[in-house]
Formats: sequence, C-alpha cells, structure tokens
Amino acid sequence: MCDWPIEEEGRTWYGLKNDKIVVFLTYAEIPVQKSLQFVKHVDAGAVVYFGGTTRETFEGREVVHLEYEAHIKMALKTLRNIATNITSSSHSKIHRIVICHRLGVVPKKEESVLVALSSTHREEGWRAAEGALEDIKKSAEIWKKEQYLQGHSWKGDKVK
Amino acid sequence: MCDWPIEEEGRTWYGLKNDKIVVFLTYAEIPVQKSLQFVKHVDAGAVVYFGGTTRETFEGREVVHLEYEAHIKMALKTLRNIATNITSSSHSKIHRIVICHRLGVVPKKEESVLVALSSTHREEGWRAAEGALEDIKKSAEIWKKEQYLQGHSWKGDKVK
Repeated sequence: MCDWPIEEEGRTWYGLKNDKIVVFLTYAEIPVQKSLQFVKHVDAGAVVYFGGTTRETFEGREVVHLEYEAHIKMALKTLRNIATNITSSSHSKIHRIVICHRLGVVPKKEESVLVALSSTHREEGWRAAEGALEDIKKSAEIWKKEQYLQGHSWKGDKVK
Repeated sequence: MCDWPIEEEGRTWYGLKNDKIVVFLTYAEIPVQKSLQFVKHVDAGAVVYFGGTTRETFEGREVVHLEYEAHIKMALKTLRNIATNITSSSHSKIHRIVICHRLGVVPKKEESVLVALSSTHREEGWRAAEGALEDIKKSAEIWKKEQYLQGHSWKGDKVK
C-alpha cells in the first residue's frame, strides 16, 4: 500500500493506493482488466465501468492522435479527492473505486480515462460513476491536445 | 457470424452475433474482457460496462449461491430485441453492444449479467446502458434462485 505523497513507479504516479481506492496517472496503457478485478467485492451487486476512448474523427476532422498533459501533483490531488468523497460519505455504498488518466499520446480505440467502481446496488453505482467522470472532466488539471492531419488544438479535458 | 435461430455451442446460446451486436446466454463464466474488446470502435469516445455480481449477503441473510434459470428461446429473443432497438434507432450513436446473462450457479463476485456498449459521446452511452439493464431486469424470461444457509427463494430477475 502506498499513499500520498506521490510515488513515481516508472511512468506511473499514484495519488492514492489502498484497499478501497486506486488513483493514478500513467503514460502506459490503462490496465482495464486489473481495475475491474480490483473493484469487485463480496458486498457489491454491481460493477460499473467507464472508459473514454480516442475517436478517429472529431467534429468532422480526422484525428491523428490525442495527447494529454497534466499538472501531475495537482491532478492527482483532485482525482484523489473525487475518489475519497465518493467512498467516504456515510451514505455511500461504493465499496471500491479506481480512477486513472493516461498522459501522452493515446492511440485510437485506447482508453485515456477510466472510472471503475463497485456498489451494493446498481442505482448508486451508475450515479457515482457518472458523477466521478463529470468531476474529473470539470476539475482535473489535465489538458488534451487534438492533433489533426492539418493543425491541432489544445483544450481542457472538461470540454467534451 | 451466426444469427437467429439460436445455435447451441456447448452451453452457450446466441440470440444474435454479428459485427455490431452480441447477445447470449451461457453456463460458463462471462467473458468480460472479450466483451469490452468487441465493443470498442474508432467512432466511439466512450465504453460503458455494467456487471451484476453475486453478493455474499442479501437482506441480512448469507447467500450460499445464486442460481439462474431461463426460458432460453424466449429470453434470447427478448435480449435480442433490447440490443437491436438500442443500435437501430436512427438517433442512436451506439456503435456496438454485448448483452449476456449467465445461467446456473454463479459464485460470489462473479457476473450474472453483463451489458457493454460503445457510443460516440458519454451521455448517450450512460443512458443506453442503464436503459438496457432495466429492460433486461423487467422483461427477460430469467429467474433467480437465492440459496441461503437455511432455505431459498425464487424470484424474477426483475426484482432487485
């Protein structure tokens, strides 16, 4: 178990890693299967997963690749707060959560962001996962560069 | 590619299997990773997954195991209709979908039901996945037996 402050492991930075929560940024491919295995819990009747994947086109223009940059320390703290709020509420029936954002170039069809969690019932799982994702888009200090065949544009990940 | 009518492959029955939709019932473990790989699409910015997993307790009673039975032909047709409706709507931006329900005994932490899909944007993905799951619970001809330490109860899967 490692905890804040961040610990560099190759090119993966953990904001939090304990028996309920894993939050990290990485330049490597996001480990979807491992994340789903982690969140499973004997008290959970539901596992909800969201993966944001790179599309071939954006507003009619062909995307060559997407690239993400972050203020690593600030972004990890933000993601950590989102995960902690979700699991620590006294009303929460969210048992385990993984939040991960990839940095650098993310090839087509691969995940740039992952939210995976388990909940006692399905309703609270849907709400928590969608809420976490919106919070990430809105708050995390992560920026996206869309490289087109001609030109590119930078934007906060908060923009869809 | 195999299509309706149902085709028996060992203990897996397909209601539909083409390049956009996979719907099946199985006595084997649900292939989560394979389902997620299948739904990924170059036009999709989102992958949404839901897995219904067996809990250790239900209403305070210890569950020894859950067991599912179906009217296989009817249930496949129902699941097929749910998947087809979601992908064939002219407004739909759902690119690929997998719906699967497991039959027989489902051990703790394993999936009894899976919905996985990809969508252009995240909002339509969340709505479609949750809608599909509710339709499955409400309509599919699948029944759940909860085996407790003492006694058991049967119920339609539509009951949470």
